[in-house]
Amino acid sequence: MQNERWLLPEGIEEMPPAQAERLESLQRRLRDLYRAWGYDLVLTPFIEYLDSLLTGTGSDLELQTFKVTDRMSGRLLGVRADMTPQVARIDAHIHAGSEPNRLCYMGTVLNATPQEHGGSRSPYQVGAELYGHAGIESDAEVLELMVETLRIAGLAGTLHLDLGHVAIFRSLAAQAGLDEACEAQLFEALQRKAVPEIDEMLLQWQLPGDMARMLAALAQLNGGIEVLDEAAVQLAAAAPGVHLALEQLRSIAAHAADLADVALHFDLGELRGYHYHTGLVFAAFVPERGHAIALGGRYDDIGAVFGRSRPATGFSTDLKVLLTLTPAPVRKNRGIFAPYCDDPSLRSEVRTLRAAGERVVCELPGQQGDAVSMACDRILQRAAAGWSVVAL
Amino acid sequence: MQNERWLLPEGIEEMPPAQAERLESLQRRLRDLYRAWGYDLVLTPFIEYLDSLLTGTGSDLELQTFKVTDRMSGRLLGVRADMTPQVARIDAHIHAGSEPNRLCYMGTVLNATPQEHGGSRSPYQVGAELYGHAGIESDAEVLELMVETLRIAGLAGTLHLDLGHVAIFRSLAAQAGLDEACEAQLFEALQRKAVPEIDEMLLQWQLPGDMARMLAALAQLNGGIEVLDEAAVQLAAAAPGVHLALEQLRSIAAHAADLADVALHFDLGELRGYHYHTGLVFAAFVPERGHAIALGGRYDDIGAVFGRSRPATGFSTDLKVLLTLTPAPVRKNRGIFAPYCDDPSLRSEVRTLRAAGERVVCELPGQQGDAVSMACDRILQRAAAGWSVVAL
Repeated sequence: MQNERWLLPEGIEEMPPAQAERLESLQRRLRDLYRAWGYDLVLTPFIEYLDSLLTGTGSDLELQTFKVTDRMSGRLLGVRADMTPQVARIDAHIHAGSEPNRLCYMGTVLNATPQEHGGSRSPYQVGAELYGHAGIESDAEVLELMVETLRIAGLAGTLHLDLGHVAIFRSLAAQAGLDEACEAQLFEALQRKAVPEIDEMLLQWQLPGDMARMLAALAQLNGGIEVLDEAAVQLAAAAPGVHLALEQLRSIAAHAADLADVALHFDLGELRGYHYHTGLVFAAFVPERGHAIALGGRYDDIGAVFGRSRPATGFSTDLKVLLTLTPAPVRKNRGIFAPYCDDPSLRSEVRTLRAAGERVVCELPGQQGDAVSMACDRILQRAAAGWSVVAL
Repeated sequence: MQNERWLLPEGIEEMPPAQAERLESLQRRLRDLYRAWGYDLVLTPFIEYLDSLLTGTGSDLELQTFKVTDRMSGRLLGVRADMTPQVARIDAHIHAGSEPNRLCYMGTVLNATPQEHGGSRSPYQVGAELYGHAGIESDAEVLELMVETLRIAGLAGTLHLDLGHVAIFRSLAAQAGLDEACEAQLFEALQRKAVPEIDEMLLQWQLPGDMARMLAALAQLNGGIEVLDEAAVQLAAAAPGVHLALEQLRSIAAHAADLADVALHFDLGELRGYHYHTGLVFAAFVPERGHAIALGGRYDDIGAVFGRSRPATGFSTDLKVLLTLTPAPVRKNRGIFAPYCDDPSLRSEVRTLRAAGERVVCELPGQQGDAVSMACDRILQRAAAGWSVVAL
């Protein structure tokens, strides 16, 4: 029974010092990175009125969200399961100008069910968003920032980027005159690359031959950069939106070619991730893991439900996942153990050492454990001229 | 209606960049302080099985805790409303040795109702705990660390410390043979310093004259250091536990006398704050605010419910409150605005500047807003020999 009190719910973790320190160190380095790129930090509420929280985000997030009744208002609250829509609301609400606005965020989110089998229900979400610019250049910036993020997490060298563009499917579906239900059905089959199913749908809907061929092609248009050339041929008869999207993918490919050690993969049929995306979408993978380790893309419409429609693009990742992908460094003892002694000169020496950034652990009278068990590698010793630091 | 989506529940705040930056900066400086004092960071779960979360903490916390049903386990979960008991569980669970263990924590907690009228329901709790040492020296250490915390938050010079000791009341109540109900009734009246009510209770319970006089004295024993001398006289007939407690208060007073600009106030009848305290208790005040801005004390029994009883002492505070007590610094533009230009040498210059810690904002083609509106004070300009940074 007493042991049971230590049990945590499935997918909910606590972090003892060694892990917490790694997370904190990575989080700091990322915060410095985002600052250097001009991204300002915002802190989103942990809990909100459910209808605000879910506005404009679709039903996935609703299922993911823990709900609780607010004793003070009698209304339903939701615990944040994704900070991206919250940050978009902050941009729509607070940022009055029409110039670009760069924001970043970091913190725990909670998911009612894990996003993947056996996964965490309390990811440490980190992300960056760029509002107010519709061009592909802002997508390129956040994509590069995502790669930098993963590089700082120690994942350079094995990165694999998946690139797609939601406008290709959307433009084709509009050109074909598909209604919402048909579009959703086709979308879903495309995610599974269920070619026979897709062919049957297209046949049943009696689309013109050109149209059906183009929609069917999406399931096959994936691979290296050559996919873009192939697409230009196979989707030649598509609406201008498709060609603009292909142009944007080319431009991103040129930009990303500069990023060392990153393999690019294009998939014109896969529309991974969030339902609110509207343009370029991207995901990062490493060989060790079947699921994406970072996701991003453009979602221009999200601010509209808050009364202000702004272009927006961004990415997010889960630091807890990133930490599992790199070996934990060996923790070394580093610190100075100060003996218990009521001498004021010792107290002042300890203060000076701490102010200089040293870790100083003070002995407590009668305590168990010596300098080493207090994770120290040096001790303070009384010397002729005051106190001196001596290596163990 | 659209405006309503911006409304947040009462006592729940979001933090735009200016505020988030202040909180982050303070949090970092405190983390560095705690590291220098040998306190390791732990991250506690945001949500837990309700019975684990509330074990050993009393009913205040139960009322404060948001509860939600876990779809995966069917069990009731609670959102953390106070991290102190969670950290105690981590010490009991993870730390096998009997040497002192120093832990710190920082993060958002949620309260179902605000702890004070109109207050926040999402404090940013920061605290430090020292386990495994029962002497007053560890209380002195955490008290000093609390004062340092408030000093770093910019609150030096106006601090006022309230000191008490739970063992004084507890020992007297035991000596008087009060049952639990009587003890609780007297405790409650003492908090309000309701002298006539207390006198009536004591009369009704027919306590011996000495005993009644000592219990009644508690309501009056508050003021400067002279209170300790007065107590020694008035409580002369008390059990040894009372005298040990007075000795500890003297020792703390001697230690705290070294802390510049801190006024000490003793209150032997007030047992402010947490119900789990067992020894020295302390609270910090500033003139601008009627409520304590930081609370701490000894709570030796808390680990027992997790199967391991360890001495423990610590403090906690709310960074959001601390930030309201100091003026926000004026934010200055600081950064370099890089023009939009496809020149690879510019990209590499931007990279170099960022790696050196500079904030560099890249212009996006066709964007609204100039360098100043992007909060920059310098720009990158093409010069004869590459790019140079020019002040605005």
